[in-house]
Amino acid sequence: MNRNFAELIEQKKSGGELSEEEISWWIDGLVSGSIPDYQTSAMLMAIYFRGMNAHETSWLTHCISTSGDVIDLSSLKGVKCDKHSSGGVADTVSIPLIAIAASCGAVMPKMSGRGLGHSGGTIDKLESIPGFDVNLTPLAFMEIVNRLGGAIMAQTGDVAVADKKLYALRDVTATVDSVPLIASSIMGKKLASGADVIVLDVKWGSGAFMSSESEAIELAKTMVGIGEDNGKTTVAYVTDMNEPLGNAVGNALEIVEAVQVLKGHGPAKLVDVILTLCDEILMQSGIVQKREDARTMAMNAIANGNALQRFADIVRAQGGDPAFIDRPEVLPQAAVRLPVYAPRSGFVTSIDAKGIGLAAMHLGAGRRTKEDVIDLAVGLVLDVKTGDTVTATHQIATVYARTDDDARTCEQEILGAIVVGQAPVPRWQTVVAKISRADGVVTYERS
Amino acid sequence: MNRNFAELIEQKKSGGELSEEEISWWIDGLVSGSIPDYQTSAMLMAIYFRGMNAHETSWLTHCISTSGDVIDLSSLKGVKCDKHSSGGVADTVSIPLIAIAASCGAVMPKMSGRGLGHSGGTIDKLESIPGFDVNLTPLAFMEIVNRLGGAIMAQTGDVAVADKKLYALRDVTATVDSVPLIASSIMGKKLASGADVIVLDVKWGSGAFMSSESEAIELAKTMVGIGEDNGKTTVAYVTDMNEPLGNAVGNALEIVEAVQVLKGHGPAKLVDVILTLCDEILMQSGIVQKREDARTMAMNAIANGNALQRFADIVRAQGGDPAFIDRPEVLPQAAVRLPVYAPRSGFVTSIDAKGIGLAAMHLGAGRRTKEDVIDLAVGLVLDVKTGDTVTATHQIATVYARTDDDARTCEQEILGAIVVGQAPVPRWQTVVAKISRADGVVTYERS
Repeated sequence: MNRNFAELIEQKKSGGELSEEEISWWIDGLVSGSIPDYQTSAMLMAIYFRGMNAHETSWLTHCISTSGDVIDLSSLKGVKCDKHSSGGVADTVSIPLIAIAASCGAVMPKMSGRGLGHSGGTIDKLESIPGFDVNLTPLAFMEIVNRLGGAIMAQTGDVAVADKKLYALRDVTATVDSVPLIASSIMGKKLASGADVIVLDVKWGSGAFMSSESEAIELAKTMVGIGEDNGKTTVAYVTDMNEPLGNAVGNALEIVEAVQVLKGHGPAKLVDVILTLCDEILMQSGIVQKREDARTMAMNAIANGNALQRFADIVRAQGGDPAFIDRPEVLPQAAVRLPVYAPRSGFVTSIDAKGIGLAAMHLGAGRRTKEDVIDLAVGLVLDVKTGDTVTATHQIATVYARTDDDARTCEQEILGAIVVGQAPVPRWQTVVAKISRADGVVTYERS
Repeated sequence: MNRNFAELIEQKKSGGELSEEEISWWIDGLVSGSIPDYQTSAMLMAIYFRGMNAHETSWLTHCISTSGDVIDLSSLKGVKCDKHSSGGVADTVSIPLIAIAASCGAVMPKMSGRGLGHSGGTIDKLESIPGFDVNLTPLAFMEIVNRLGGAIMAQTGDVAVADKKLYALRDVTATVDSVPLIASSIMGKKLASGADVIVLDVKWGSGAFMSSESEAIELAKTMVGIGEDNGKTTVAYVTDMNEPLGNAVGNALEIVEAVQVLKGHGPAKLVDVILTLCDEILMQSGIVQKREDARTMAMNAIANGNALQRFADIVRAQGGDPAFIDRPEVLPQAAVRLPVYAPRSGFVTSIDAKGIGLAAMHLGAGRRTKEDVIDLAVGLVLDVKTGDTVTATHQIATVYARTDDDARTCEQEILGAIVVGQAPVPRWQTVVAKISRADGVVTYERS
């Protein structure tokens, strides 16, 4: 294109629309290096202020998704389903979900990431299982999915390379919190992962990227629009992340919680999100027609042990030893356990999800920067949810730490994050809304 | 400062104020390279959208002004006055102004720049005088100013180095048109130039940086605030640049026009601006108390030849041969002269100043990019102003070109820029407003 890229920045800065050709020029130039980072960062800030319309956002996502390797899932039989969470605390959804859905006949080729900041990552959690290999060859990955209906591997570095460059720049230029940029980043990777159906879990609240319900709904609508525009069946659920979703925060501890879910005694709120997403996957895969049928099927798979068995099979197929399912003590263990008690009698008024996530990160369960090495054993398990009644002798959490000092510091952080007040408060609604597109219109349905 | 610069970008992006310490951190980091360009460009775009308040803008300007050499004018006697124009077409103000003011006793140590795009530059114009040296040593410069009251040299590369970096980035990231950034760029260089009094000529109109009168007034108010906050007496005039100010556009041609002004027969509109600025300089220098007295003094200096003589003295002191004053043919001469006639009878409805500036640039009188070499001889001289009545045989301009082809192309561009209509139109008001600060308040006074 015989123009200076500054003209394109000007166009967006003035509130204009970028054409497909112009967006392609930008992303190609970003990847090749012909457009310098200082121009891209100015464009990102202009997009932060001016936004992008649905068409621009969908095309940007297309460009990101084709900027690196595009995974070819054509060797997999059936309707391929992918699931994505916008990230949260005690968010042990993917692992049990894949086992349950796969045991019900769904096809779940899952590529996941690692945790950063106060959010955990599925790949880190799985690495706490002795022998579990997250770096499968594509051939081995396909074989396991074809045989067992599910497998989980780490996303390779060559998918959506433009997203890596964009994200690195956004991170250092205060342009992370832009709906079109967040949506195109997430969906660019999802589109490149090759599934037919994408089910999204968009969190809102103190521990989520979106701090208001309305922002989360906007993000969900944008992502559903992008997915559908790019030929993928895409459904999003907006769920609560004002308090931690499950009870366990920390890698091995979350594997134990995943097993509890599959054994039928997971925390209610976590199970609610897992089964809601599972319903959608079974319906979109054409395995059932109605949500009630999906729910019955999934609950049966838990009750009769098929889901747990399927999890054990997948672990074994990926080189792991499933002994931890019955003997959690074979997972990495923390040296120190410290019970935390309620500071007073009353009602649990709030549990700051981000505060809890950071408390676990400070123990070593999470990464401050991408280079940090995490400790798979440490973390914490909560025993309360917002709205619970507690007495002053009530245990509200357990800390799993490397040292007594770490444990005491974490105890203080937990006590800082959990507010016990004198007046009862309502519980958070777990699943807030469903967003999907029918007849070309993105619709939004409150739960 | 133990923080990430992205936090500062976020602060500005969210509409917050940057402290003195934070702005210093930014500009120091920009100059040292510790803050990468991609962060600065995001900050610039955030400033474009969020603006800067008066205090932030004044401090940013202070940081820019001290980022390189600060000129020490303490060896000059008297009140040192500087003048700056925001750039225009046929804007031959500085050269006659310095001669007139100096001949009336003012002290005018002027550092000027070169032209770019459709705007000319004083240094280029002076280089068309045989032998004239624009690269004086500081010592020689001071000596001439002390002896003659004025001298003009090219701004050195080491003044306001942060401005050079900022401007280069703004140019390629569509962040040029931001009032605090424009104002701090101009005033950063002015503050570093060391004068006591700064008189600003802020243009508005089709050939100016500010396309509306209100934007020009806003820029003028901002610059006056910056100058006064930094301890300089600062007065701004907002003047018209909807049509070229004088008649001549082109380097040697403008030197000829400067001489005409000093001989008492310059174009009325150009003379109006020169004398208005000269009034202010004589008043602010304490040479006279009242505008009427200043005007009388300046007109006398023209009438009795003192101003022209002072110009000849300065030219000689800077190594130039003043022979051109009486024999303009010793200046660089273009090979081709082409008269341009009115396309029809009627009224000159508009003369697009930018179009005229670009027509001259295309002849070779100006630079498209900083690297272009200009032709000092070429250009054009207009014979009409907006509001004039013309007949179809009326000569409206003369083109001075290298070749017939160049001349014909320029003729077409001139005819494209000058609209001759059937209804009379009012003339543009030359001096629109004066902006100054009294008792801490920036005031604005319409002419």
